[in-house]
Amino acid sequence: MTTTVYDNIGRLVTNDPSLGEGPLGIVRNASIVVEDGSVIAVGAAGQTADDRVDVEGRCVIPGFVDSHSHLVFAGDRSEEFASRMAGAPYAAGGIRDTVAATAAVSDEELLRIVAARRAEAARAGITTIEIKSGYGLTTASEHRLLCVAREFTSDTTYLGAHVVPTEFAGRSDDYVALVCGEMLAAASAAGARFVDVFCEVGAFDADQSRAVLQAGIDVGLIPKIHANQLGEGPGVAVAVEMGCASADHCTHLSAADVDALAGSSTVATLLPAADFSTRQPYADARRLLDAGATVALATNCNPGSSNTTSMSFCIALAVRDMGMTADEALQAATLGGAAALRRTDVGRLGIASVADLVVLDAPSHLHLVYRPGVPLIHATHIASRPH
Amino acid sequence: MTTTVYDNIGRLVTNDPSLGEGPLGIVRNASIVVEDGSVIAVGAAGQTADDRVDVEGRCVIPGFVDSHSHLVFAGDRSEEFASRMAGAPYAAGGIRDTVAATAAVSDEELLRIVAARRAEAARAGITTIEIKSGYGLTTASEHRLLCVAREFTSDTTYLGAHVVPTEFAGRSDDYVALVCGEMLAAASAAGARFVDVFCEVGAFDADQSRAVLQAGIDVGLIPKIHANQLGEGPGVAVAVEMGCASADHCTHLSAADVDALAGSSTVATLLPAADFSTRQPYADARRLLDAGATVALATNCNPGSSNTTSMSFCIALAVRDMGMTADEALQAATLGGAAALRRTDVGRLGIASVADLVVLDAPSHLHLVYRPGVPLIHATHIASRPH
Repeated sequence: MTTTVYDNIGRLVTNDPSLGEGPLGIVRNASIVVEDGSVIAVGAAGQTADDRVDVEGRCVIPGFVDSHSHLVFAGDRSEEFASRMAGAPYAAGGIRDTVAATAAVSDEELLRIVAARRAEAARAGITTIEIKSGYGLTTASEHRLLCVAREFTSDTTYLGAHVVPTEFAGRSDDYVALVCGEMLAAASAAGARFVDVFCEVGAFDADQSRAVLQAGIDVGLIPKIHANQLGEGPGVAVAVEMGCASADHCTHLSAADVDALAGSSTVATLLPAADFSTRQPYADARRLLDAGATVALATNCNPGSSNTTSMSFCIALAVRDMGMTADEALQAATLGGAAALRRTDVGRLGIASVADLVVLDAPSHLHLVYRPGVPLIHATHIASRPH
Repeated sequence: MTTTVYDNIGRLVTNDPSLGEGPLGIVRNASIVVEDGSVIAVGAAGQTADDRVDVEGRCVIPGFVDSHSHLVFAGDRSEEFASRMAGAPYAAGGIRDTVAATAAVSDEELLRIVAARRAEAARAGITTIEIKSGYGLTTASEHRLLCVAREFTSDTTYLGAHVVPTEFAGRSDDYVALVCGEMLAAASAAGARFVDVFCEVGAFDADQSRAVLQAGIDVGLIPKIHANQLGEGPGVAVAVEMGCASADHCTHLSAADVDALAGSSTVATLLPAADFSTRQPYADARRLLDAGATVALATNCNPGSSNTTSMSFCIALAVRDMGMTADEALQAATLGGAAALRRTDVGRLGIASVADLVVLDAPSHLHLVYRPGVPLIHATHIASRPH
């Protein structure tokens, strides 16, 4: 088996405090040796291996773990976006426009679109990505979207309960029954790992959300939830009650919500680019961290409320506007994302970690915040492995 | 003379309402013909020329005009930045750290550093750039920095009055005398086009600012001013009184300041990335535009308060947080910047304009806001011309 050494690393962020300084486990003048897609050694510069990549003093970080994306869609909602920026409120109804646009393209075209988007995310340093369905809303189309997603990741999420489709207007319980019935069976057959529901006024209420998540749990899926995006509500409480891997958005939290998250293993996944693009107030990461909750940052890449693959942008916003330090934000975008996906093999660069790493055009990870908007991803190395 | 056609442009932003739709003068399915660095024809796709560049349906915009940058510096202040994000206030004193770091590098190294930064700005779509001195603060060093700047642009600005150097502590009027005397003569000899002063508590007061600007005017320089960044103050009033091309920052304005700008030809140059990086409130572009003032957006690229070359990031912030529409923000980053530099040849793509253009990886300029953080600059074409 060939070994590769990434050498001459100015600063290596391992996220393993046993390997280096501080909570980020930073090693200066480092090298890292990789074999068969896994890290086998971390040490001073100059370790040897069969192949050598000289990163010329740059900073190396674990690849970003994007634990919340809606990458499988077609169409463009920039006009809706511009009108919102000119004063119109955000509403979930635009999801239906994307459902129509996605249905209108062939499988081949959809695969091409998602591949381009996944490549853009890789250029942005994202090495692990979760991808949701949710722009189908019928049994056949949700199955289709999950099969497309499965081409790109093993972390696929069934989000049939994204919004109540027009044809079920006034009969949302009937739609929930479909979501929990044959649509779930199709999602499971398509290899979904997670089940998710949009718990919000205008989407699904607490009882409906519980029903969707329990049905998913019953067939072996891990629950996640879209919670408290547009206002306070029962989403976070349901997340903790149902043992969700993550409660995503958490923009509007009560004190009880914060306590519930802090007392649970449910990760609070914050989506700063969504708060940015919908002009919501920013979620208060500081309050969650101070309470003891685990926080993840994710892009929420989707055509309506957060059309970005830039985790760097999310990190910069989280520091500017959510009260995180640069160290906390980087860790939330790597280790935090991994926790939200219930994975321990990614998000760090310790021994036996998956060798997913990002070389920054910068001497330290602080530049991700210090140089906002500048494309600082010099190279993204995604370890080849089955998914 | 060879002609070149940029063909198959999905949407062409000309900033010339006589050529297309709306204030941006948008032409769909367009082509643009260039000869000797100037636009000679704008029309439907399919115009012919000696050479052809097919932009494959992408959006083309005028190159960004960055009317406020401090590109000539060495050193890194990311640690200061991180501590500010952790709660320390912004203070102008860090400027002195950059003065020391810049003095410590050779001319050759400084040229290499600035060339790399200028190349980064070009990759970000900036085709015209103003560059200030101000990290020298002695006659010889300000001359040196202006000579370096002059290698990259004709729009150089003498900012000897950036901060009072330590050796003049308690004798700021003596420093002003130097700035207005032999240092100004050296700056003029180095080809400076503008004179600038940092009018703020802790830097230079109104009378000192007037003295610096008047001295520059007397030797033929165009005045500009750093005004009202950290609090309300006399900067904007001085700008209008002295006929400044621009008043830059404008973060804290009184009603009288807004009226003064609206009633003058002084451009209000807003620097959203500086407001971002110093956690200031964002300047209120909407109020200025509604009053009738001309607004420019610029990067303010510098190592202390805004270390970015991303005009796209500035545009996205201006729409999210300064109340601009996407159209207004794009125009402020092109035509507005040109006005702040008293130039009419750049910032637009009409007949006889300089053929500086940017091809976006997007179907419309709205994506600069709709897709925040994503590097959307597909190609930057800077027309060759003397400077």
